[in-house]
Amino acid sequence: MAMRSQYCGLVTEALLGQTVTLCGWVNRRRDHGGVIFVDVRDREGYVQVVCDPDRAEMFKVAEDLRNEFCIQVKGLVRARPDGTVNDNLKSGKIEVLCHELKVLNPSVTPPFQLDEENLSETTRLTHRVLDLRRPYMQNNLMLRYRVAMEVRKFLDTHGFVDIETPMLTKSTPEGARDYLVPSRVHDGHFFALPQSPQLFKQLLMVAGFDRYYQITKCFRDEDLRADRQPEFTQIDIETSFMEEEDIRDLFQGMIKTVFQNTLGVDLGEFPVMSYQEAALRFGSDKPDLRVKLEFTELTDVMGDVDFKVFSGAANMKGGRVVALRVPGGAREGSGLSRGEIDSYGEFVKIYGAKGLAWIKVNDLAKGRDGLQSPIVKNLHDKAIAEVLARTGAQDGDLLFFGADKEKIVNDAIGALRIKIGHSAFGKNNGLFEDRWAPLWVVDFPMFEYDDESDRWMAVHHPFTAPKDGHEDLMVTDPGKCISKGYDMVLNGWEMGGGSVRIHRADVQQKVFDALKITPEEAQLKFGFLLDALQYGAPPHGGLAFGLDRIVTMMTGAESIRDVIAFPKTQRAQCLLTQAPSLVDEKQLRELHIRLRNADLVKPA
Amino acid sequence: MAMRSQYCGLVTEALLGQTVTLCGWVNRRRDHGGVIFVDVRDREGYVQVVCDPDRAEMFKVAEDLRNEFCIQVKGLVRARPDGTVNDNLKSGKIEVLCHELKVLNPSVTPPFQLDEENLSETTRLTHRVLDLRRPYMQNNLMLRYRVAMEVRKFLDTHGFVDIETPMLTKSTPEGARDYLVPSRVHDGHFFALPQSPQLFKQLLMVAGFDRYYQITKCFRDEDLRADRQPEFTQIDIETSFMEEEDIRDLFQGMIKTVFQNTLGVDLGEFPVMSYQEAALRFGSDKPDLRVKLEFTELTDVMGDVDFKVFSGAANMKGGRVVALRVPGGAREGSGLSRGEIDSYGEFVKIYGAKGLAWIKVNDLAKGRDGLQSPIVKNLHDKAIAEVLARTGAQDGDLLFFGADKEKIVNDAIGALRIKIGHSAFGKNNGLFEDRWAPLWVVDFPMFEYDDESDRWMAVHHPFTAPKDGHEDLMVTDPGKCISKGYDMVLNGWEMGGGSVRIHRADVQQKVFDALKITPEEAQLKFGFLLDALQYGAPPHGGLAFGLDRIVTMMTGAESIRDVIAFPKTQRAQCLLTQAPSLVDEKQLRELHIRLRNADLVKPA
Repeated sequence: MAMRSQYCGLVTEALLGQTVTLCGWVNRRRDHGGVIFVDVRDREGYVQVVCDPDRAEMFKVAEDLRNEFCIQVKGLVRARPDGTVNDNLKSGKIEVLCHELKVLNPSVTPPFQLDEENLSETTRLTHRVLDLRRPYMQNNLMLRYRVAMEVRKFLDTHGFVDIETPMLTKSTPEGARDYLVPSRVHDGHFFALPQSPQLFKQLLMVAGFDRYYQITKCFRDEDLRADRQPEFTQIDIETSFMEEEDIRDLFQGMIKTVFQNTLGVDLGEFPVMSYQEAALRFGSDKPDLRVKLEFTELTDVMGDVDFKVFSGAANMKGGRVVALRVPGGAREGSGLSRGEIDSYGEFVKIYGAKGLAWIKVNDLAKGRDGLQSPIVKNLHDKAIAEVLARTGAQDGDLLFFGADKEKIVNDAIGALRIKIGHSAFGKNNGLFEDRWAPLWVVDFPMFEYDDESDRWMAVHHPFTAPKDGHEDLMVTDPGKCISKGYDMVLNGWEMGGGSVRIHRADVQQKVFDALKITPEEAQLKFGFLLDALQYGAPPHGGLAFGLDRIVTMMTGAESIRDVIAFPKTQRAQCLLTQAPSLVDEKQLRELHIRLRNADLVKPA
Repeated sequence: MAMRSQYCGLVTEALLGQTVTLCGWVNRRRDHGGVIFVDVRDREGYVQVVCDPDRAEMFKVAEDLRNEFCIQVKGLVRARPDGTVNDNLKSGKIEVLCHELKVLNPSVTPPFQLDEENLSETTRLTHRVLDLRRPYMQNNLMLRYRVAMEVRKFLDTHGFVDIETPMLTKSTPEGARDYLVPSRVHDGHFFALPQSPQLFKQLLMVAGFDRYYQITKCFRDEDLRADRQPEFTQIDIETSFMEEEDIRDLFQGMIKTVFQNTLGVDLGEFPVMSYQEAALRFGSDKPDLRVKLEFTELTDVMGDVDFKVFSGAANMKGGRVVALRVPGGAREGSGLSRGEIDSYGEFVKIYGAKGLAWIKVNDLAKGRDGLQSPIVKNLHDKAIAEVLARTGAQDGDLLFFGADKEKIVNDAIGALRIKIGHSAFGKNNGLFEDRWAPLWVVDFPMFEYDDESDRWMAVHHPFTAPKDGHEDLMVTDPGKCISKGYDMVLNGWEMGGGSVRIHRADVQQKVFDALKITPEEAQLKFGFLLDALQYGAPPHGGLAFGLDRIVTMMTGAESIRDVIAFPKTQRAQCLLTQAPSLVDEKQLRELHIRLRNADLVKPA
């Protein structure tokens, strides 16, 4: 005899008059008019079980039920009496009249009620098992599974093959910090946990597997920002013999299929925008297109104005001056208050801006006098005319300005754009469109100059191919060299990114030259890739998506930790198992290491 | 324009008269009668491309082709001339008349030919990328993928949900040795890589996810035997609310489906055999049922014989005496030679046996005189009569004997059984059936006594439930207590195993008591599980399959390393990437550790 005939949450009127056997947890018990009602919960939902005192033995068991007891119920499915139907539940039209009731396992009183709100994250992660029983977490992880499975089905249909790459691999001290694993067999040697399977997937292309994927854990030992985890899950993909555009089309199709088949959402066609355009219009390489605000370029206008902040930025190497027009922002009553404007002035300082200049466009008909601003007096007529013409300002608009090094302007005014768009003002004034807004950002530069280390750095990674015809620019003018990299962006989040890779050893060598990686260094770190490229490596490319992030977006979860069963805290700790923990001296000795702080070895 | 229209290996007569574009590798180039024939290879197979000197430009390119060049071919599909059809190839009826030919990437001369046999494993693993191009490795990894995908589809259909568990988890120094990962954030603390997700999957059952699976990497830092890897892949499964037999039925169905859908093999119904029966008949808990030889129990017969080896074993506590009847083993000419019998005598010593007694049954009609053996003279008539009756010996049979501690007898005679069954003699004499021979082994004991540590140890693991009604035996007579554990065995290999778990805290406590794990110890190691069991943990159970091993069996590969893309050597090294490797002092400092042998730190 099976322990149950179906899931609690799936008992519907289709089973009226039938006897069912159910297993689940007591979600709530109510005594009403001498009858005991028990809401029994399982992963599929709830069902109402009615325990009538007629059946004395069963009723006695029911009387002792408490929340979170695990029980087995055998009973008759019947229609709920008129007026007690609950349309919010799949099982809302029926109830189960209990014939037999068995406690499979009692429960002590949980430290919190499952429907309690505003639980601290510490409480939730410490008692993760109970936290995971909550429908919110159940739904998040079930959706996560469906997303992963839809991805697998799509890739299977398109001939992609899941091939596992090593978890114990080689440390390459570049990019993020590695997690290291001491070797017992090889004194003083360490494995590293992979930051991504990048090199292995390229090797698999050289090996002729043609189409590879893997949904796999990657590791970065970095200080954790809000939405980072030491271990995270990547949908990692690579294909041979496909051009950039075909790759983008295929994986746009994949993400569209996933959204369609899990959320029933049609993402439509993805606009394709160059990195340069995204930076010009939105100050970002992952613009949130739901926000209907754009930058206006003014660098060429401000070179000779008296306002030193503007002219200074306009004349500095790599400086930029922009305006952000906020329609209705200066409107009496409904516009932004002085306090709000001031707080935005503080906000942009987070991104390195020194201040936030603004102009309220009160009445264009009055010319200069119709503009209210601390800075207008230091702008000559031509500059003002250009500002108004280029922004297309209307009466009641507010113009914000950014003027500094390009990166600071982009970061600060880009963040301000998002902040205003997502604010109550933005939403009330049509500056925010509530929709899914995907796009591709393409034509990334190959390199960006790093002032600190005084050398060119790879924008994607050093295996990204340059655009056809740009190979020589890597030597002659690296800053002008455009790559075959692409990012998929959704609502201002990078969901994934990738590139066509370099498949020729000579081109790869040029990139290393541009990055000032010596042949010896390259051989030491990537020798096995360089070696592989010599044996007829095929043209190939791919991308990787962040599964945690995609599911976070899809569920609308507040944190990435809400789509991971057993996440780490921001201090990289598991509160449930208390990992990491101290270990024995014997373990350390076997691994040929000792602690710098010997006091911390676990007592024997 | 796509780079190719289809895979090389899939061009068939269905495309006759059509123009195709193909990408792949030069497998072989032949010049014949002024024409160049190129076998082009991709992951789906080969196609023959014909380069005719009529097209001079193309022909010039063809002349320079060498093995492993990556090329693109555009040409016309036409029938092969009579007499040149190759029925071993999907594309064997056609060839492609080349119109355009492009070298996508040349290749230096590979260090070995792809069809070279008897390559050393060192060569193969050092040049793994080329080794992986060989159809043997391509097929192995493609089958591996199909197996995993069939598993996923089956589990999806049955409501199992893939939920990821942590890779950075807690060290529990018991069982195998952990791989440790030093924490940067927490001085002196370490994560461990999981040996299995056992505890997490049980927590997911307590959390109500009902049906969980994961195909995931597990890690054991053990000295590597032939078929072990530091990281290996487990199909890990757990379900709530199912009894032992239902669980076995379901996963028998899964393995049958996988074999059916990938190899087209029907495994039939799996016999279910108790651990005790398997030990009695085959001396093994994973008997290879293809071998048609069985033990005959003689312990009760040999107590009073003069032959001290037998009487000593029969009278010793935990001793055992058995015969292994080898039909036809004594037959003149076709039987086992004296040299073979002697070599088996050496063979069993590997397993701790001191020797190997034997009797040749030459002529039963002659009584004692018809038996040829060094030991017969020390066996009394009744013992001989029992031996002959119980073994059912016939003229021409050879009887081997094992007499020692039970474990030694089982190991030695069990191994001998396999060795003879798989030998040329065994195969020629019908002692080996060439088929798939699956079975379930059930009713394992809960505990086995470990003489070394002088205490009971768990046979499966300490979370395995005892049979209903056996709970008290854990206290009163642990050796008699039977568990709800089960192993799936195929052709003498353990493919997977699992158990119904303990879901009640009080029963779990009894197991810890039997294992002499103190409450403090239990709390420290498994506190989070014990804690979880208090909150209405559901009845649950599951199992885990070794994916590497299943695929090794299915492919008939010689080594587990042949079904893993980038395996480690038996010295736990990756010859391709040279992992593990030395690391910087800076990395060690950040992790609060130092090397015992400071000379090994990588020079800055």
